[in-house]
Amino acid sequence: MTAPSFAERLSARQAETSSLVCIGLDPDPQRLPLHLTSEHNAAQAVIAFNRAIIEATVGAAAAYKLNLAFFEALGSESWNVLQATLNTIPKAVPVIADGKRGDIGNSARFYAHTCFDLLDFDACTVSGYMGRDSVAPFLDHPGRGAFLLARTSNPGGSDFQKIEYQGRPLYEHVVRTALAWEKPGNNRAKGSLGFVVGASDIEALRRIRTLAPDSPLLIPGVGAQGGNSSDVLEAIREGSGPVLVNSSRAILYASAGRDFDHAARQAAETLRMSLAVALS
Amino acid sequence: MTAPSFAERLSARQAETSSLVCIGLDPDPQRLPLHLTSEHNAAQAVIAFNRAIIEATVGAAAAYKLNLAFFEALGSESWNVLQATLNTIPKAVPVIADGKRGDIGNSARFYAHTCFDLLDFDACTVSGYMGRDSVAPFLDHPGRGAFLLARTSNPGGSDFQKIEYQGRPLYEHVVRTALAWEKPGNNRAKGSLGFVVGASDIEALRRIRTLAPDSPLLIPGVGAQGGNSSDVLEAIREGSGPVLVNSSRAILYASAGRDFDHAARQAAETLRMSLAVALS
Repeated sequence: MTAPSFAERLSARQAETSSLVCIGLDPDPQRLPLHLTSEHNAAQAVIAFNRAIIEATVGAAAAYKLNLAFFEALGSESWNVLQATLNTIPKAVPVIADGKRGDIGNSARFYAHTCFDLLDFDACTVSGYMGRDSVAPFLDHPGRGAFLLARTSNPGGSDFQKIEYQGRPLYEHVVRTALAWEKPGNNRAKGSLGFVVGASDIEALRRIRTLAPDSPLLIPGVGAQGGNSSDVLEAIREGSGPVLVNSSRAILYASAGRDFDHAARQAAETLRMSLAVALS
Repeated sequence: MTAPSFAERLSARQAETSSLVCIGLDPDPQRLPLHLTSEHNAAQAVIAFNRAIIEATVGAAAAYKLNLAFFEALGSESWNVLQATLNTIPKAVPVIADGKRGDIGNSARFYAHTCFDLLDFDACTVSGYMGRDSVAPFLDHPGRGAFLLARTSNPGGSDFQKIEYQGRPLYEHVVRTALAWEKPGNNRAKGSLGFVVGASDIEALRRIRTLAPDSPLLIPGVGAQGGNSSDVLEAIREGSGPVLVNSSRAILYASAGRDFDHAARQAAETLRMSLAVALS
């Protein structure tokens, strides 16, 4: 009997919560409720904020995604804040390190070690511009996963990802190429490779779902960035890989007052329900 | 009078040292001299190692590059080790944060803040797959710089960087596109944008030097990875942008004994001399 793959663990959590929602923790000290920042230093305020958000939303969350840019910016406290936040999340909930790492094989092994062995994240996001040896070390940890950037939802996402190569957009070439890295002969853990595809390009989402129907997908860009839930559901209807729809600011900052956690719970629950039909 | 740009500061340091050498600090705890690891814990050993390497090599170094993967892997001590290492490097020597960051604008601003405002690095490496808003925040800090990944020297570097678009390799399209981001109308600091181009693809180095003759270049892959100094010098002969040739392992681990710092100095000095002709 082999241990479950990352894709299987994520699917199990989604079935248990009837949720596709990934809650993105992007704790911006400038946007935390005033009562937290006035009572604590920045690091303590972020810990208190994250804990309250997690406790309020965990029932609606299939997964959490920690944006490492916001943790790093806490300087000497960043590691402690990261660990304190991770300790608040129940073990059954997959947690993604969103750092978009991508470096030569030797460096990538160190990044994967930090992410999976030291911090015990379940998955991470990676950038594939440097090719196979920059991604492979993240696929070698049984039960863990990596979401490779394919089509992103930001304004600059079209600068390179949509250029045409052999009659297809680059993001599609990235997905096709990466799928070959996961083949059994290449010694990668099955169910470890997923893709990041923004909700703002539904055509790209549809193409990638067709190319990689079993792969986990991480979909940012619903809500604030313009994507909408029903289009996403339509685009992923075929295929069996677990899909996460990420929302960060719309949940974290649903209210700037003392009721921020209740407002976050409500926002998360509303998103969960708008997507739950996909699991039935 | 405007403050000098990153390119100008780097050129000044190169003229002062007659050096194109960038020394890459990739401190792997498994490869440190035994007498350091037996006397100290991992974090202290890395600090002692970095200090000794820097003191031995600073006369031959135009710049240092800290590979963040190796620092992060020190866990809760990583921030202190980073700061202790940076404090050892004289202010006149440009220091590059090699983290290959690349995320949407809001996250990229946090990464740039950590890099330039908190840690006071002079430059960093960035990955451009997510396009202009993922790179721009690194170009907005006067006197600082960013090296955008163009053509990398690792085995997977050819997976995507060489695909043909409009009759040219993707890396060339990346360089052309990024140069437009630096135009005055785009409010970027002049002399802030550079490129990473590996020494293992001399044809790519020649093309990028021609396209961006004034831009700083960071060139890994000489020595261990197969590139050779005279080919690099030939390829960069035209153009005026400051060029850094990076060497990491061949300098750091030139000896595994108590003479590791002297051996590092010798390796750095040998590389400096093999390249110095380019500055005369």
